[in-house]
Amino acid sequence: MDRAADAGNAVGRLPVEFDRIARYFAPLAGPGGLGLLDDAAVLMPPPGRELVLSADAMVGGVHFLVDDPPALVARKLLRVNLSDLAAKGADPLGYLLTVSVPRETTDEWFAEFTAGLAQDQAAFGIALLGGDSTSTAGPVSLSLTIIGHVAPGTMVRRDGARPGDGLWVTGTIGDGGLGLLAARGEIPDPTGYLAGRYRLPEPRLGLVDTTFVHAAVDVSDGFIQDAGHICRASGVGLTIDTDALPLSAAALAAPPDSVRAMIAAGDDYELLMAVPDATVEVLQGRAATLGIPLTRIGTFTTEQPGTVRMIGDRGADNSGWSHF
Amino acid sequence: MDRAADAGNAVGRLPVEFDRIARYFAPLAGPGGLGLLDDAAVLMPPPGRELVLSADAMVGGVHFLVDDPPALVARKLLRVNLSDLAAKGADPLGYLLTVSVPRETTDEWFAEFTAGLAQDQAAFGIALLGGDSTSTAGPVSLSLTIIGHVAPGTMVRRDGARPGDGLWVTGTIGDGGLGLLAARGEIPDPTGYLAGRYRLPEPRLGLVDTTFVHAAVDVSDGFIQDAGHICRASGVGLTIDTDALPLSAAALAAPPDSVRAMIAAGDDYELLMAVPDATVEVLQGRAATLGIPLTRIGTFTTEQPGTVRMIGDRGADNSGWSHF
Repeated sequence: MDRAADAGNAVGRLPVEFDRIARYFAPLAGPGGLGLLDDAAVLMPPPGRELVLSADAMVGGVHFLVDDPPALVARKLLRVNLSDLAAKGADPLGYLLTVSVPRETTDEWFAEFTAGLAQDQAAFGIALLGGDSTSTAGPVSLSLTIIGHVAPGTMVRRDGARPGDGLWVTGTIGDGGLGLLAARGEIPDPTGYLAGRYRLPEPRLGLVDTTFVHAAVDVSDGFIQDAGHICRASGVGLTIDTDALPLSAAALAAPPDSVRAMIAAGDDYELLMAVPDATVEVLQGRAATLGIPLTRIGTFTTEQPGTVRMIGDRGADNSGWSHF
Repeated sequence: MDRAADAGNAVGRLPVEFDRIARYFAPLAGPGGLGLLDDAAVLMPPPGRELVLSADAMVGGVHFLVDDPPALVARKLLRVNLSDLAAKGADPLGYLLTVSVPRETTDEWFAEFTAGLAQDQAAFGIALLGGDSTSTAGPVSLSLTIIGHVAPGTMVRRDGARPGDGLWVTGTIGDGGLGLLAARGEIPDPTGYLAGRYRLPEPRLGLVDTTFVHAAVDVSDGFIQDAGHICRASGVGLTIDTDALPLSAAALAAPPDSVRAMIAAGDDYELLMAVPDATVEVLQGRAATLGIPLTRIGTFTTEQPGTVRMIGDRGADNSGWSHF
């Protein structure tokens, strides 16, 4: 009998939560995670490397649909954080995770959620280091801290873009935002491609390197917003040719109004990179090796520092874009 | 004008969230936090040190009362995580934080919350490295990952207790659980001492060291529960003399039934340590230097490995305790 639970444990961790940690999360722990049987994980950083750290939260009803498959929610949570490391040119090492769920959450939910984590841990070569599981009266609330590493001084930052650099983007833009509409059933998505892009982004790990990329971000908050982050941090202007934007076949088949709106939306987890002409071929070579499509869509300038200017037919009817 | 917001940003990060990060959280960032202007923080680990990592979530209505002062909620969140480092004998370095709040959360809430963080950052010599701010349809949901460091191989674990070691505890036990009842107005608390212990725990940093402590945990889940963690991890039994339990004057003045129940509750954030007789004086010397009260309340044994046995008058009427 567990007197602590009988007494109404002050901190809200019920015995069932220990069982779930042991059953579902402990098998995900790496060597430093000590089987999640301790208060903390121990990690010897790779010698002579700098750590790169990022944390992202995902909340049911905000960042994913409450009836999304738990395995896909788990994999998206990992991938969203891996995408941050990808933009920084860092190699992933491990992660810590906190999970707050309604009391009625079933064992099946945990089984599927952790199966998703296991699948992507194997795919990306990382392990769980530690975390916490609690209850909440609200929707599922997830938080993940990812740890990666780089050679000292080589983390690619937002503030390194220089006038004359090209703006390059991986993959296609707008699928994430359109995918949310598709997942909600608000636009047609006969192949399920768009919803899939929303639910399971592809972190572009291994592409970015400080020797040939001046600055980078991933498209999470919104394509224009994120391009603007580079401009403001670097103190440069940017002209984007909307006609050059790489759109998927599914996006081209979607209603034009939603495409225009969704280019401004986020959740694509593609990379935006400021690349000098001198090193473009190195970037292209690595992208080809990794099978990652690359498109040049703009140029950084000395004009209106901190501002994104949109030109081309897709932007022409929408002068608001130039006032971001 | 912000077209991304107009379009209905797919990831739920509104411009107000960027403003709040810049206004309230950026001033808390350490050198590696890059002013929270990048996707990630960069951290050069102290040379030749192992990192110690822990993550804890706190949810409104579960781990704190929804009308608790935001500054105290922030400080408790930090201190709960610092307490994990204290139990491991680690020195704190920095932290990452994700904050999910209802849309109606005011600027005042953020101002008070971050003022609390700033106060305890200064008190404990740590800085914010990164994080995320999102909205939620549920209660405030907080997650913090703390990073500390130790000399390689010296993290104090749960699994090192040996038969014959004494069980030592810092401070007083039961105030956290009683403090929750007091904060809810369910028991008298004329001086406010108990509610204060619930709302603002004191992490016992600097006490635990692997050279004189075999195993340690902090009292977070529940005193008996946490003592049991050491027993199960170490494969030893434990006899606790309930008459020796250090109780505060406020706890002694509380209704006896609630004291009995609350000894089993958690949220005290005192340390439980397995200490061999040979090194007790070293521990006592350091505790005296730090002004931390210490009490021996039990002995680890070879009997019934993994089990906590309670003896003494406070446990005598409650045989359930021995069956934990």
